[in-house]
Amino acid sequence: VMLPLDPDGRVDLDAARRIIDERVAVVSVQWSNNETGVVQPIEEIGAIARGAGAVMHCDGTQWVGKMPTNVGTAPAQSGAPAPWTTVDVLTFSPHKFHGPKGVGVLWSRPGTRLRPIIFGSQELGRRGGTENVPGIVGAGVAAREATEFLADPSRRAMLGAMRDAFERAVLDRVPDAVINRPRDPGHRLWNTSSIGFPALEAEAMLLLLSERGVCASAGSACASGSLDASPVLLAMGVPPLVAHGTVRFSLCRDTTEAELKDAAGVVAEAAGVLRRSMAAT
Amino acid sequence: VMLPLDPDGRVDLDAARRIIDERVAVVSVQWSNNETGVVQPIEEIGAIARGAGAVMHCDGTQWVGKMPTNVGTAPAQSGAPAPWTTVDVLTFSPHKFHGPKGVGVLWSRPGTRLRPIIFGSQELGRRGGTENVPGIVGAGVAAREATEFLADPSRRAMLGAMRDAFERAVLDRVPDAVINRPRDPGHRLWNTSSIGFPALEAEAMLLLLSERGVCASAGSACASGSLDASPVLLAMGVPPLVAHGTVRFSLCRDTTEAELKDAAGVVAEAAGVLRRSMAAT
Repeated sequence: VMLPLDPDGRVDLDAARRIIDERVAVVSVQWSNNETGVVQPIEEIGAIARGAGAVMHCDGTQWVGKMPTNVGTAPAQSGAPAPWTTVDVLTFSPHKFHGPKGVGVLWSRPGTRLRPIIFGSQELGRRGGTENVPGIVGAGVAAREATEFLADPSRRAMLGAMRDAFERAVLDRVPDAVINRPRDPGHRLWNTSSIGFPALEAEAMLLLLSERGVCASAGSACASGSLDASPVLLAMGVPPLVAHGTVRFSLCRDTTEAELKDAAGVVAEAAGVLRRSMAAT
Repeated sequence: VMLPLDPDGRVDLDAARRIIDERVAVVSVQWSNNETGVVQPIEEIGAIARGAGAVMHCDGTQWVGKMPTNVGTAPAQSGAPAPWTTVDVLTFSPHKFHGPKGVGVLWSRPGTRLRPIIFGSQELGRRGGTENVPGIVGAGVAAREATEFLADPSRRAMLGAMRDAFERAVLDRVPDAVINRPRDPGHRLWNTSSIGFPALEAEAMLLLLSERGVCASAGSACASGSLDASPVLLAMGVPPLVAHGTVRFSLCRDTTEAELKDAAGVVAEAAGVLRRSMAAT
């Protein structure tokens, strides 16, 4: 059963309360979305899941390393610290915070029963096969460095302001572009910018951007090569014409203002080239 | 259904012919065994599997990189080259030939139907998840370097002779030690030496060896920490007293005669220390 989203791209909590009942074994929600950076109301969904006796799994791939994550206590953004009782199982990928590809992390609350899909005696019987030692060590180093970055909230605030300035610079030059974002700025990660160029083809945009040194993506990596519009954007009510032309830009903690200034120029130029080429045919 | 082994540790082909019939969907055999280096009669088993209409999977983890592997034609050791029709699916691990840990290789005959256990669009739909790019590249480099090593058969012959000399040196100093090997030397990989020290504990031996700079193992990594005797050795008829005291030594293509000479001395010393300590208690 898929939980419906509100126009901000967040899980509709009223629908979640109706849908998640004692017949539900597992609730699985992204902490934040990979295409839009929209942050889900994890604590509220977790409380609903807990009330129904379901195991709560959270895909933290886009969140962990970008925001403080404490499996022991609730994140500071929710107000007063509280015992962490929301998530039973958390998964994430260190390559999303400068760690190596090829290794993933599974955290689970002690006592959560997990059944492996790759059998073997390694990793406490949870995943068989010779351990990826360099990947595991690299993940640990990346986590430590991300923790250092996250210790200073002003760095995230500065990067978020840089992202916002990038979006304004694009909108100044491509006035019909659309930022796919929730109304509340606090409900979006600082690092993600999802920009729709109505009636343009995202794949063509990516090609032009790539030629000009800007790496971006359309939809999710899991669906790259697909010409369908992003189901994530459609589910939050983005019109198909905008969703088809949506490109995702991602900042990292090392992104500079100069890079973003250049990128905004390249994006505007690419949109212009593409529009003229479409008008000519 | 487990196929029985003969005393050489090779699959009993008469039993295989009886057991593998049209009810069998998949036959899975190691090309060579990880604990003993015993080489299986893959072509004969493959012919039996093919005759029964079963898919033939081969775990080439211990073989690939140690011996030439050509999925297009039969290996040279079987006599005249013949079209390769034995194996439908071959799996192996590059970390067994100086490649990185954390990546595996799957080769399958075109047309073989495979059902993934980790779903996703990556890797032709056969395994989901962001690809381990450094692992994949490293696997390719390791395969190329292994191919260069394998191009000269005299290097394998020399290493096999060095392994035999190591075993003789151990037997000279520990006369009751037992080499767990097939009668036909051609049925054993050049790199593996499985030596049983009757009535000694393999785990205690490993500890003493490790303190003296010799890395060895008992049983398989998949069962490390287990105090049970190796089922591989028991299946080939090794007495429990010997199996419990069996240590596996592995050469690589860079192993030197000097290292093996030192190792034989360390092994003999460790066996002596352990025997005296047992006699004293």
